[in-house]
Amino acid sequence: MGKIESRLKELGVELPADRLVPRANAVHWRQSGNLVYVSGQGPFWGGKFIVTGRLGKDLSVEQGREAARIAALNIIGHLKDACRGDLDRVAACIMLQAFVRCTDEFDDAPLVANGASDLIVAVFGEAGRHARYAIGSNALPRNIPVEVGGVFEITN
Amino acid sequence: MGKIESRLKELGVELPADRLVPRANAVHWRQSGNLVYVSGQGPFWGGKFIVTGRLGKDLSVEQGREAARIAALNIIGHLKDACRGDLDRVAACIMLQAFVRCTDEFDDAPLVANGASDLIVAVFGEAGRHARYAIGSNALPRNIPVEVGGVFEITN
Amino acid sequence: MGKIESRLKELGVELPADRLVPRANAVHWRQSGNLVYVSGQGPFWGGKFIVTGRLGKDLSVEQGREAARIAALNIIGHLKDACRGDLDRVAACIMLQAFVRCTDEFDDAPLVANGASDLIVAVFGEAGRHARYAIGSNALPRNIPVEVGGVFEITN
Repeated sequence: MGKIESRLKELGVELPADRLVPRANAVHWRQSGNLVYVSGQGPFWGGKFIVTGRLGKDLSVEQGREAARIAALNIIGHLKDACRGDLDRVAACIMLQAFVRCTDEFDDAPLVANGASDLIVAVFGEAGRHARYAIGSNALPRNIPVEVGGVFEITN
Repeated sequence: MGKIESRLKELGVELPADRLVPRANAVHWRQSGNLVYVSGQGPFWGGKFIVTGRLGKDLSVEQGREAARIAALNIIGHLKDACRGDLDRVAACIMLQAFVRCTDEFDDAPLVANGASDLIVAVFGEAGRHARYAIGSNALPRNIPVEVGGVFEITN
Repeated sequence: MGKIESRLKELGVELPADRLVPRANAVHWRQSGNLVYVSGQGPFWGGKFIVTGRLGKDLSVEQGREAARIAALNIIGHLKDACRGDLDRVAACIMLQAFVRCTDEFDDAPLVANGASDLIVAVFGEAGRHARYAIGSNALPRNIPVEVGGVFEITN
């Protein structure tokens, strides 16, 4: 078992078994050189989006964090595909883009996005520390509360 | 005539003759290594933005899709400049970032963004399949309903 | 004194002395190859965010521009760290992502984002001209009016 797979097990983290079928000609990830761009992911688990709503109204920051954590699990799942199953090939998380669906006055998007950032760093360690932006949005696909995409560096 | 130019002709697709003059020190595209970053584009045609409004209120998903398609035509136009006129140098569409101006309850940003994604794949084939995020926004420049940027890989 | 440091002095531009401590496992910048990705920055100065509010309601375009300029100062500050103090290693600004907190009807996000773009070009000259998107947002962290991230190319 690879180092990262062991780490996932140690953390009690399970990657999603089901993958969302994109509503698009878009795909979940694309590689250029040693960079892998992962499409925006939401709290998809067991074949459906399991958290919907709006921060500042329907959901607490803690619930938003958990949604962001599940989005990051999906990111790692797609990244595993990009690495042909070997997550030890992930050299770094370069950037996460986090969008948080919220009311006009909600100003804690970073705390929500931390659900994704903290998982990535728990799994990949220092190599997982990344640049980021965390932006509020009035509307996200299928009313999910958070969408997170990323750019990762992998080895050959 | 290049392969992609033939494909454009076959699809009956015409690239914009006029280019928006950016309201900024920003430019329409910038290259780093073999990656070309294209600035966010809207439904600009014949020297002006021809679709404005908000999804979920003023515009149908179909109208939004068409606006996204025109945005993608502008992306391809700028990409052609980046390739010094030879679109056959486009090796891959790596990523599209799509922002859709909409009401707070609109949850179909991906269907709107498909107007851009579908065109890119129609033109570039499998090489055009890309990572993507599709995000709702409460406000876009000049009230356009969709803004789409992209990252492409080109050959020398 | 380096060329860019001289230029900063000539322009009377001072970089921020204090750096925001991120509320996250995220970091201010991350490098991959010769690209540096800088996290989204706001109008942080003297240890706090000095401009808050919403374009179209609380702030004029000119005030928004100034906030974007300060965000860009923070970008340059982090970029300087990425270059181990030598800003002459900055080869190009490839892309800026600008998000502007605004009312639903505000359509001048590009004019606000110009506060960042104009500073970057004033400092780095032609090498500073970049691809960009400028997007409206209903909510940003800590109620800042603008958040700007970027991708830069540096030399070794």
